[in-house]
Amino acid sequence: MTFVPAHEGIEKLKPYQPGKPISELERELGITDIVKLASNENPLGCSDKVKEAVAAELAEIGRYPDGGGFILKDQVHAQFGVAHNCITLGNGSNDLLEIFARAFVSSSDSVVYSQHAFAVYGLVTQAINAEAIEVLAKGFSHDLDAMAKAIKANTKLIFIANPNNPTGTWFEEAEFDAFMQKVPANVIVVLDEAYVEYYPENFNSLKFLAQYPNLIVSRTMSKCYGLAALRVGFALASAEVTDFLNRIRQPFNVNHLAMVAAVAALKDGVFIEKSREVNKAGMAQLEAGFEQLGLNYVPSRANFILVDIQADPAQTFNALLKEGVIVRPVGIANHLRVSIGTEAENAKFLVALAKVLGLEAKA
Amino acid sequence: MTFVPAHEGIEKLKPYQPGKPISELERELGITDIVKLASNENPLGCSDKVKEAVAAELAEIGRYPDGGGFILKDQVHAQFGVAHNCITLGNGSNDLLEIFARAFVSSSDSVVYSQHAFAVYGLVTQAINAEAIEVLAKGFSHDLDAMAKAIKANTKLIFIANPNNPTGTWFEEAEFDAFMQKVPANVIVVLDEAYVEYYPENFNSLKFLAQYPNLIVSRTMSKCYGLAALRVGFALASAEVTDFLNRIRQPFNVNHLAMVAAVAALKDGVFIEKSREVNKAGMAQLEAGFEQLGLNYVPSRANFILVDIQADPAQTFNALLKEGVIVRPVGIANHLRVSIGTEAENAKFLVALAKVLGLEAKA
Repeated sequence: MTFVPAHEGIEKLKPYQPGKPISELERELGITDIVKLASNENPLGCSDKVKEAVAAELAEIGRYPDGGGFILKDQVHAQFGVAHNCITLGNGSNDLLEIFARAFVSSSDSVVYSQHAFAVYGLVTQAINAEAIEVLAKGFSHDLDAMAKAIKANTKLIFIANPNNPTGTWFEEAEFDAFMQKVPANVIVVLDEAYVEYYPENFNSLKFLAQYPNLIVSRTMSKCYGLAALRVGFALASAEVTDFLNRIRQPFNVNHLAMVAAVAALKDGVFIEKSREVNKAGMAQLEAGFEQLGLNYVPSRANFILVDIQADPAQTFNALLKEGVIVRPVGIANHLRVSIGTEAENAKFLVALAKVLGLEAKA
Repeated sequence: MTFVPAHEGIEKLKPYQPGKPISELERELGITDIVKLASNENPLGCSDKVKEAVAAELAEIGRYPDGGGFILKDQVHAQFGVAHNCITLGNGSNDLLEIFARAFVSSSDSVVYSQHAFAVYGLVTQAINAEAIEVLAKGFSHDLDAMAKAIKANTKLIFIANPNNPTGTWFEEAEFDAFMQKVPANVIVVLDEAYVEYYPENFNSLKFLAQYPNLIVSRTMSKCYGLAALRVGFALASAEVTDFLNRIRQPFNVNHLAMVAAVAALKDGVFIEKSREVNKAGMAQLEAGFEQLGLNYVPSRANFILVDIQADPAQTFNALLKEGVIVRPVGIANHLRVSIGTEAENAKFLVALAKVLGLEAKA
């Protein structure tokens, strides 16, 4: 019996089930060295310069953050050449994705996104009680042609990820440009680039911003920049779109330590370069390991890889957990998503995977 | 020309205008010691134990927060006796107020709140494009009888603050109980207790939770606990209401350092006691100062006071700014809201106020 009716969109929304903290899992399982390759975090943590910047700012904890985010917008401007009035700050990119939907979509509208895409696209659409148009993927990739064809008269927003989570697949600039040409000017396209820092040579999204005022480029600092704990992301778009986003943004959505950390993280190019190198080496290590075990995988341009384990994902997930390794089942049959870790973490995972799947490495 | 139509609620929403950072104001005005009595922050900052707890956690910046907020819910449970499944964590109470509205209110519904109330009640209602029913205040206080009578068939939610911001007014338990008896069981009542820690002896909201499953008690750690920079608040309600709130809550809305800080802040009762004492002394200092200047004020049970300056609030605000004191015009004719500061800050404000108003202290 529901005495208080939540609105229809919420009634249908499946509650988020948070994972248990690592410390609690370790107590339950009686082990102490769990390796977490489940959330696409940076295995190096964050830059030491970030820690120094945060430590220097502890006296400011009692004061509200700057709601305008001046110092962070200034750094984004310096680095990406985007004006302050074209930047929207978010409490992680999850916050931004929600802001995009809430600014432009009503319950009578529809939202287009791909099969095998980030779960939050569906959640923010459902929270508004809007229509979700999920377009079949082409293999594990976005089918941009089919997505353009799926646009209806009531479509207000399209979510696209490049590279895509949880599959790691990507598209090229020419494909994206051809897609944008087909999208009506009054439909917002969100280009989610949460993982773009890992292979930045492949795609320059910023040059499309001037051409397409209906484009929003979404970035997070939770991945390569290593600030997942602090929650900070930013969106780049036309001034007009940015104005709408900032009307609905909570005035103090990004906390002060996150802004200070973000500025320090953006400035530390050396840490980003090192993170890319560790990721490329780890990707090669896992690819080679999968090949030795005779397992297929989806080539990835992110900091994770989707592997075909030829077995039930939930059972394998649980078996790996008992071996002290957390990975992520992502709702794709026979597949698990594994974040790229340090060399030692990757090695531990490969040994555990071989064990639980009963496989032996081929010579 | 709007090429991309935001939905109707957003089109009507007035964009938030962030205040300039103090550092920028200081540059503009050519002064270096601005006193900020504008945002009801704790003039003591936060507990040293909070700073120590945050400093000890910097190695975790690369990892996502615990989406379930286990450690913080455990501390709230220990301190307030509320079960985990009756607690919702928020990125400050602004986040919570938005979650309440989005969970229970659709565009065809209405929301009731008082005149002279916190601006965010109106903003979150407008963002949904729902009907706002603003009930005339009785003097500077909530008129609970009139608010009960204002409930319509489509009313889904009522915002009430005790004490109220920006007026500092309050009501007693018996008045609240009588009000709750009149509210239909399918209408959510949000009791916003952002300032309750300053005069906790007056009202025990928690005992009403068992009696009224449609009641949500909202708390923030930005005020007395001194964590404004970090963004953390929590809501207490029935398990059923809490389930709906957590469906729409962003899974990582509260950042990790905020949770760690909140646990340390909740544990440090000595700091809270000291904050109360400083606030009571400062309140008495400002009341005496106003009386000497012949100015009326609204008696307050918060950490701020609304004073009748018998002059234009915007002009006086600007004149005070040039004297190095920031206060807050709050849309009430002839009044300014002043946060209680340290003894020195309060003294500086009183001298500046006398100067800009051309008043002399009476003997």
